[in-house]
Amino acid sequence: MLSKSEISFIKSLHLKKYRKDHNLFIAEGFKSVSEFINSDYTIETIYCTAALLPKLYKFSRKIKLVEITEAEISKVTALTTPQGVLATIRIPTRTEISAEGLKNAFTLVLDGVQDPGNLGTIIRTADWFGFTQILCSGDTVEVYNPKVVQATMGSLSRMKIHYTDLEKTLSTSGLPIFGALLNGTSVYEVDFGKEGLIVLGNEGKGITPAVQQIITEAVTIPRFGDAESLNVAVSSAIFCSEIKRKSIK
Amino acid sequence: MLSKSEISFIKSLHLKKYRKDHNLFIAEGFKSVSEFINSDYTIETIYCTAALLPKLYKFSRKIKLVEITEAEISKVTALTTPQGVLATIRIPTRTEISAEGLKNAFTLVLDGVQDPGNLGTIIRTADWFGFTQILCSGDTVEVYNPKVVQATMGSLSRMKIHYTDLEKTLSTSGLPIFGALLNGTSVYEVDFGKEGLIVLGNEGKGITPAVQQIITEAVTIPRFGDAESLNVAVSSAIFCSEIKRKSIK
Repeated sequence: MLSKSEISFIKSLHLKKYRKDHNLFIAEGFKSVSEFINSDYTIETIYCTAALLPKLYKFSRKIKLVEITEAEISKVTALTTPQGVLATIRIPTRTEISAEGLKNAFTLVLDGVQDPGNLGTIIRTADWFGFTQILCSGDTVEVYNPKVVQATMGSLSRMKIHYTDLEKTLSTSGLPIFGALLNGTSVYEVDFGKEGLIVLGNEGKGITPAVQQIITEAVTIPRFGDAESLNVAVSSAIFCSEIKRKSIK
Repeated sequence: MLSKSEISFIKSLHLKKYRKDHNLFIAEGFKSVSEFINSDYTIETIYCTAALLPKLYKFSRKIKLVEITEAEISKVTALTTPQGVLATIRIPTRTEISAEGLKNAFTLVLDGVQDPGNLGTIIRTADWFGFTQILCSGDTVEVYNPKVVQATMGSLSRMKIHYTDLEKTLSTSGLPIFGALLNGTSVYEVDFGKEGLIVLGNEGKGITPAVQQIITEAVTIPRFGDAESLNVAVSSAIFCSEIKRKSIK
């Protein structure tokens, strides 16, 4: 049974201001919550229905589990269709990304991506293709937004997300910086080599001029039809796919 | 100035039942509406703010243009951020797809895709890669849902969408039928040839067993990391990209 103040506390975590104040975010659904349990994240509390209680208890006996009803879940959920379990999870301490930490890998760099569904899908796709970290500009949508968490389908539990000053971090990386731009080399032809950063821009405005200046190679997904542009999550996926396809040739 | 009954009429088109009754759907935003004007679709009425009136009038003097205020747009819009113009557009008469109409091309086949954003993104991506038609199972989300129309970013004006009995249409096509499945040939290795159908399944359940039986080649996007699955719009994009990449080799 949840008290009124518990309900309003959990609901407050739908909003960025309160996530920041309490240093907590929420994840929902059995798959997503169980992947956070098996990760480096610290679970604060899991609220779940009686049906899921034994399954979650098996995962870890150290976690605070609170049984609530379907009706109560529907009062605190951020989903249109609640899934019987909601966890409050600690927002990890920000770690600085070093040039060393970017070497010998490919890292996606998001310059102002705004749509939560896009960021979530990018994280899920990057995880599928074996990428382990993503750099985001300060104005990229916050990764602990419930819609982002949901769209990652648990992949957020494995992906390191760094919000950083892109100009500074990119220019001191010493790595090739590929940018998704018009009139560049075809993504099918470009030699990505063994390491590098792949920059993708905002849904409407693309990559900011300041970041464009640091890009060492403009890369384009060839267009065969009439659409004016591609969705940024789709573009990211094609970049991830091409980098991996070439790595196994 | 919109009357109360006009407001409720336009708003009713947010719902499938009324779109079907009136045989109309809505599209919003200058880019999307202008692409429908320059297409085979028949525009019923365009409602727009004074600022956009001259720009739209230039496109076609034959279309019924109604000037309305920002406040009025916000009463009828299906968007969170209305864009100053909303058009009501005739739903075209359904045409039957023939086996002949599928030859010498690649066609995406969607078996139960449910999320409007996914369907819209798939249409936009298919348009970018030069595909011209998509087959959908009867239980795929309706393409004239405002969220689908919005996510296509105007590409719906160019793409032919056929809702059809997939088992019947696929089995009589005489074409290779590739299916996005686990444990198939790598999408990077498969020979797509010059024509064929590419089947993608529902977000949670994948391709239905009956349709799986008609598939002639299972194709898999290789996984390099830990995500359990890819978003269906992302998978579609990688299939489109691979088919086109191989076609230009």
